[in-house]
Amino acid sequence: MTKAHEGAGAGQTAHAAAWFTAITATTDERVFIRGAALDAAIGGMSFPSMLLLLWRGDVPSEAEADLMGACLVAAIDHGPLAPSALVARTIASTRATPMSALAGGILSFGELHGAVVSRAMRILAAVPGHGDLEVWADGVFEAERAAGRRLPGVGHRWHTDDRRAEALLDVATGLAGERHIAAVRALATRVGVHVGHPVAVNIDGALAVSLTALRIDPEYGDFLFAIARSFGLAAHVVEERDRERPMRLIDPTAAFYDGVPIPDNLAKETDR
Amino acid sequence: MTKAHEGAGAGQTAHAAAWFTAITATTDERVFIRGAALDAAIGGMSFPSMLLLLWRGDVPSEAEADLMGACLVAAIDHGPLAPSALVARTIASTRATPMSALAGGILSFGELHGAVVSRAMRILAAVPGHGDLEVWADGVFEAERAAGRRLPGVGHRWHTDDRRAEALLDVATGLAGERHIAAVRALATRVGVHVGHPVAVNIDGALAVSLTALRIDPEYGDFLFAIARSFGLAAHVVEERDRERPMRLIDPTAAFYDGVPIPDNLAKETDR
Amino acid sequence: MTKAHEGAGAGQTAHAAAWFTAITATTDERVFIRGAALDAAIGGMSFPSMLLLLWRGDVPSEAEADLMGACLVAAIDHGPLAPSALVARTIASTRATPMSALAGGILSFGELHGAVVSRAMRILAAVPGHGDLEVWADGVFEAERAAGRRLPGVGHRWHTDDRRAEALLDVATGLAGERHIAAVRALATRVGVHVGHPVAVNIDGALAVSLTALRIDPEYGDFLFAIARSFGLAAHVVEERDRERPMRLIDPTAAFYDGVPIPDNLAKETDR
Amino acid sequence: MTKAHEGAGAGQTAHAAAWFTAITATTDERVFIRGAALDAAIGGMSFPSMLLLLWRGDVPSEAEADLMGACLVAAIDHGPLAPSALVARTIASTRATPMSALAGGILSFGELHGAVVSRAMRILAAVPGHGDLEVWADGVFEAERAAGRRLPGVGHRWHTDDRRAEALLDVATGLAGERHIAAVRALATRVGVHVGHPVAVNIDGALAVSLTALRIDPEYGDFLFAIARSFGLAAHVVEERDRERPMRLIDPTAAFYDGVPIPDNLAKETDR
Repeated sequence: MTKAHEGAGAGQTAHAAAWFTAITATTDERVFIRGAALDAAIGGMSFPSMLLLLWRGDVPSEAEADLMGACLVAAIDHGPLAPSALVARTIASTRATPMSALAGGILSFGELHGAVVSRAMRILAAVPGHGDLEVWADGVFEAERAAGRRLPGVGHRWHTDDRRAEALLDVATGLAGERHIAAVRALATRVGVHVGHPVAVNIDGALAVSLTALRIDPEYGDFLFAIARSFGLAAHVVEERDRERPMRLIDPTAAFYDGVPIPDNLAKETDR
Repeated sequence: MTKAHEGAGAGQTAHAAAWFTAITATTDERVFIRGAALDAAIGGMSFPSMLLLLWRGDVPSEAEADLMGACLVAAIDHGPLAPSALVARTIASTRATPMSALAGGILSFGELHGAVVSRAMRILAAVPGHGDLEVWADGVFEAERAAGRRLPGVGHRWHTDDRRAEALLDVATGLAGERHIAAVRALATRVGVHVGHPVAVNIDGALAVSLTALRIDPEYGDFLFAIARSFGLAAHVVEERDRERPMRLIDPTAAFYDGVPIPDNLAKETDR
Repeated sequence: MTKAHEGAGAGQTAHAAAWFTAITATTDERVFIRGAALDAAIGGMSFPSMLLLLWRGDVPSEAEADLMGACLVAAIDHGPLAPSALVARTIASTRATPMSALAGGILSFGELHGAVVSRAMRILAAVPGHGDLEVWADGVFEAERAAGRRLPGVGHRWHTDDRRAEALLDVATGLAGERHIAAVRALATRVGVHVGHPVAVNIDGALAVSLTALRIDPEYGDFLFAIARSFGLAAHVVEERDRERPMRLIDPTAAFYDGVPIPDNLAKETDR
Repeated sequence: MTKAHEGAGAGQTAHAAAWFTAITATTDERVFIRGAALDAAIGGMSFPSMLLLLWRGDVPSEAEADLMGACLVAAIDHGPLAPSALVARTIASTRATPMSALAGGILSFGELHGAVVSRAMRILAAVPGHGDLEVWADGVFEAERAAGRRLPGVGHRWHTDDRRAEALLDVATGLAGERHIAAVRALATRVGVHVGHPVAVNIDGALAVSLTALRIDPEYGDFLFAIARSFGLAAHVVEERDRERPMRLIDPTAAFYDGVPIPDNLAKETDR
């Protein structure tokens, strides 16, 4: 028989190289995640606890699980005009498979949409334990500018004040070092000086603070956002298939909301 | 100016067609999901409750939210040999972006891996309110065979008895009509007669029973599985990038577990 | 060491299962495709010839290679309003990777956009060698309607008369059995009777006739379309990144053409 | 009616923003690519010529079209052990859609597999018109190392001498400035000094030289590779579905070639 690749290189691949995983083991009857029997966890452990166990390797406290749950809630959807939702809906409109629509939506999480939480976490990981945070924020701001990058975690193209971010920071307070919360606020202040108007901490920044407090590898930051948002993308795919004709041209300037009415006092507040 | 498409057809697309969504509305400060202010939900609502609100449109009971949480836990990971995990790891090994690895993993959810919960839900939706379930199961079995399809929700290539499924059915009992639980067991019995050995309800079947009990549109069944599993795929991507050299050839027959030891009594039980 | 999957099932996967490919072999210095040395083919064989060799297994005639080339040309682009182009551009606008934008575009090839050539080829493969094609077309039309499917290969949402299709059928004449050309025209006629106005053979239909004449496995039909169109998607991604600001909302009703002017006589003809 | 996004931001999106494309215009009957009628090009223009027209904007010479064709041939496949082929096959084995398998394969083109042609083109674009190329190569080598990147265009994990690359450079000679060919050879020499054994120009390097000679935007470099290779991925998907059982575990160390025999003299030469 001839190997599909023959030659000196083939020798290197002729023997199975053993490799190792510390995540999950399965037997004929059971699945164990980080050593915990999954059948016992079903009904016995909350989902945010299981997720922290999976991603961090140890069982979290209740307060930690609550913060993880709040992160998932915060990112779950942001309406039909997010690029990921428009992509998922456009694919759904061709009647390609629902899974294709979801994957397409996820592929739109780029440097400018969603995929900045990990980067924000890496910036926060380098916050010095003491010293002037204004000076630190200034250094970070200049370094990111020099690299041609937008500073992650602050500002939003629509929201001048993002209440999601503030609500999440409230949940994180106590678990998050006050230092990290102060650091992300210092970044917002620094950018505000640059653009000439107040700039708020955004949802990416609040997620970065929270996930840092939960001691998760920064690599998971973008995944947290993308997967939580996937639940929202699924809702857009199902609605697109249910309500709209196939192969329509989707005009993002003509999207209207006709769902459960928004409470008057909140809408009013918005109109002020 | 010349339209990118000119002619009779252009007229049809010249005017923005208004379209509607009932999922999410955003203002300058706030996000409302199914009418609920997201900032209030962050810290104020559990993630499974929010997910049910998003996908079903009304706030669930606590028991319903617990069942939804159990569904998410049940599907979160199944080890490194699932095709989706192998795909995500292979992509991660080329150092393509983490998001590409996740999307690739999701694309492997096909008719034989993951993407059968919706089909199982549609079969359960047609269970008659009364009458002999053996007769019904026989009819479903024959119809699926005639269509050249594997009956979804029962049997597994590895697990002879899938404790995840039984644990989830336990949580669902009470909320799920006993009828649906009996129906999926009748399907397993029918397939067992065909293959000549006992066949168990699998995780897809237990998810289908649970999500049917939660009154979710069957279209969401495959999404629930795929997105819950995405959290597991993320763990495989992160581990692959952390532990393995780039561009390795991944041999699925040479994967070993070296994580937290599996409790002795459970391992023994498995070895019997 | 503990296998990642332990138990009866593990035994089944413990030994490497040999598997075989007849496509490509590589050595330390060379690549052989269907037995042909790739280094000799570079500069020595036209691309359409190589593609036919790869997909069909034998070296084609020059006329066959010309028809394959014409198929690739015919599908290469269809403007910025095709769902695949809108998806690729939307992803590009978030500054996700170019490869993500391409993959997203490909995922939008569904039952209603692009991914119907294989189905059309399977219908043509069943054209009877003799007998009344009107009767045959009637049967196909009724069968597809009964299955809830749109008949592939005829009609277009924009083009009342699709000159790409006619040009490709011209190239195919001679190689394509006249019978297959007549069959696809009979399908167009049948649908025209149903909708009450003339319906033309579309590009999918002309591709199906051509690829059937080239004796390619029908499974390749959708791939031919999707991959040829990928070259066009690449152009849209590059233009989007070059000309447009990031994170723009793309309004498909506001797309204008400002490229090389269209020849007057052709534009006039269109205006008639 | 309530806009899906309401507030100050909504005003910005309320009016359709006109946008422009110079690629393709469509009318009811015709498609024009860079001003050329597609129906006339079908049968009237070779595929590589059309591709250059599409990507570059002007009609190429015959020698240019031949070089473009050679680039496509060179990248068309590299066997079943490339990560992209393994991903496409794994997805195909779950019986997810063929389009999902193709998209998954494309997503595996990362920094270490395929997606380096654009980077190599950007390096070549900066080759000085005169001066010592050894000095230049030394500078590039040091700069890439300092950035933690592998130098693109030279070396391969399997091929010690890559005949595809040499064959493509032969075709490019004349069109490619000798300067660029000399530059990429200088890079190979420089890396060879570093690793202590001769290092060859690889297919990425030869593609970068060729596409630079064809005056294509470097952004297209990775697309050329990825899309040409997609034709090969399609062949792997079709073979996987035809020859293998679903849901198999694909062992890359156990792949054998059983296609058209490789000519004796070439195989012998390889064995020397």
